Amino acid sequence: MGKTNIVKLAKELNLSISTVSKALKDSYEISAATKQRVIELADKYNYKPNPFASVLRKGKSKSIAVIIPEIASNFFSVAVDAIETMATEKGYDVFVYVTHENLANEISVLKRLEISLVDGVIMSLCAQTKGYEHIEAFYADTSLPIIFFDRIAMMENFPRIVTNNYESAFQAAEHLFKCGCKNPVYLYSSEWLYINKERQRGFKDAVTKNGLKVIDDVTLIKCTEDAETNYDIIHKLLCSKKRPDAIFASIEKLALIVYQVARDLDIKMPKQLKVISFSNLRAASLLQPSLSTISQPAFEMGEQAAKLLFKMIEKKFYKKANDMITIDSKMDIRESTK
Amino acid sequence: MGKTNIVKLAKELNLSISTVSKALKDSYEISAATKQRVIELADKYNYKPNPFASVLRKGKSKSIAVIIPEIASNFFSVAVDAIETMATEKGYDVFVYVTHENLANEISVLKRLEISLVDGVIMSLCAQTKGYEHIEAFYADTSLPIIFFDRIAMMENFPRIVTNNYESAFQAAEHLFKCGCKNPVYLYSSEWLYINKERQRGFKDAVTKNGLKVIDDVTLIKCTEDAETNYDIIHKLLCSKKRPDAIFASIEKLALIVYQVARDLDIKMPKQLKVISFSNLRAASLLQPSLSTISQPAFEMGEQAAKLLFKMIEKKFYKKANDMITIDSKMDIRESTK
Repeated sequence: MGKTNIVKLAKELNLSISTVSKALKDSYEISAATKQRVIELADKYNYKPNPFASVLRKGKSKSIAVIIPEIASNFFSVAVDAIETMATEKGYDVFVYVTHENLANEISVLKRLEISLVDGVIMSLCAQTKGYEHIEAFYADTSLPIIFFDRIAMMENFPRIVTNNYESAFQAAEHLFKCGCKNPVYLYSSEWLYINKERQRGFKDAVTKNGLKVIDDVTLIKCTEDAETNYDIIHKLLCSKKRPDAIFASIEKLALIVYQVARDLDIKMPKQLKVISFSNLRAASLLQPSLSTISQPAFEMGEQAAKLLFKMIEKKFYKKANDMITIDSKMDIRESTK
Repeated sequence: MGKTNIVKLAKELNLSISTVSKALKDSYEISAATKQRVIELADKYNYKPNPFASVLRKGKSKSIAVIIPEIASNFFSVAVDAIETMATEKGYDVFVYVTHENLANEISVLKRLEISLVDGVIMSLCAQTKGYEHIEAFYADTSLPIIFFDRIAMMENFPRIVTNNYESAFQAAEHLFKCGCKNPVYLYSSEWLYINKERQRGFKDAVTKNGLKVIDDVTLIKCTEDAETNYDIIHKLLCSKKRPDAIFASIEKLALIVYQVARDLDIKMPKQLKVISFSNLRAASLLQPSLSTISQPAFEMGEQAAKLLFKMIEKKFYKKANDMITIDSKMDIRESTK
């Protein structure tokens, strides 16, 4: 089975990674029978848990790691600002890692952190992250506190800071219908991310409620991580016979491309095309036309993530009831949907 | 003289900090007479150089620190992106520190770094930084490589990555005159920063060349770090009898406030007011009117800074001839100056 790791052990034993990890640590939560099965297989493959983490981590390093998909972004740069501000107050240093929406990078950052001295991790997933095995394995090896924010992993017992994606998207789509739109289209770029699923679900429910059908590739248009490809996709969409009369951009950069394409095709906004977008663009009100936005509380989300992480690091205590913390977004209606 | 440090020793001896540091390290560059003076005074005050740095730094930590005035900024978030990308390629981790334009924060970050394990520092000064004593003292104690970028310190022998501020500003102001402007005003927020001085010099030279006089507080308007105060300053300016017919914003956030004020006062741009700004706003072309910009090569500047730092860390070698590296900005003329 190649280089053995805890993920492979768990698979072969048909157990969760966390169970295997606990069994190897002789946890009272695991039955003697299970422990024996785990230890036998681990012995067979000569598998040893990564010894670095616990040895190195006897003293606290007073540093944390922030893993984000991008930093040249209005949302993530503000979130990092909040985390860094909280960390400075608490006397912690902050490592920043940018995955550039690439799963291989996300995996390799966690590998690096396994033998680092950080006291905890704040993380927002990249667009390619479908499964969580690399994160489970990291946690099993290090037992470090991990907080997810915005692009959260659906891993139970890990605190997650998120906005009300479903409700915000539903409300924004409803707004488009109230403006008289009959053919709105939803643009997105990652099908795996939980937050996209939630936004899409909100959009779909509003469409269905208004008596229309949701059709993949017609009502829901998948874009990419590449700006030029996205320009082509949106150009084709806005040149089509059944051109949509409204766009719901689930991420800001897609809304800005819609503006460019509309200008290049001389489509008048908002008359011929209405646009609303999840966006933290500070200049949204100065665009032509000004952009209707659902803005996430970027600073508050970063701040909450940092606060919770320091609580976990310092008190080694965390209330399960707070596993998912939702901070509401704010809808600002402007000219692009008037 | 209170808690003695190298800065105070240098002052009392009327020597440079670097000379005192070298004398204490018994450098061949310093004369025996000077060494004796330094050592006598150091003994008198029982001063010992910070021993931590050199002891701790025997092994390389493979991490660097980036100190920037803000991160929720189109320029700095892209620069950090470039630095992080280069660092990952080289196997280095990146600490990010944000000073929030506050000198006390800048000083305290350097104090923290004195006893940290980083291998080098990339730095962009905060708006309040007038003197460099805190940086000189840090360098004297740690001997760590330091690279400045964008908001550079005018410290000889330290590599500095900068854009062609003077030429870009001169060219942009000339452009305003060519558009028929007769009364352009320059907005800025920090009088200490070298890059502001250079931009201001470029603006002034263009004004003088066009037969006008530069008057402080009339042609050159000082703003602050606070958005609301800036709104008031610009509001007052655009309500005045001798309203300017053009604004040169030396930083992006001031240009966006000009847009807000002009809209609130119903001033038509570009007819009644032309605007040009140093800016890295990706949506500049989508504003109403689209904004004429001088955009700094943020990614290239970050990349160069990182490349140079790793060269210095790994080869401990640096050619003096490259002390100041200039990467040109790009002017994009759009509707706001038509």
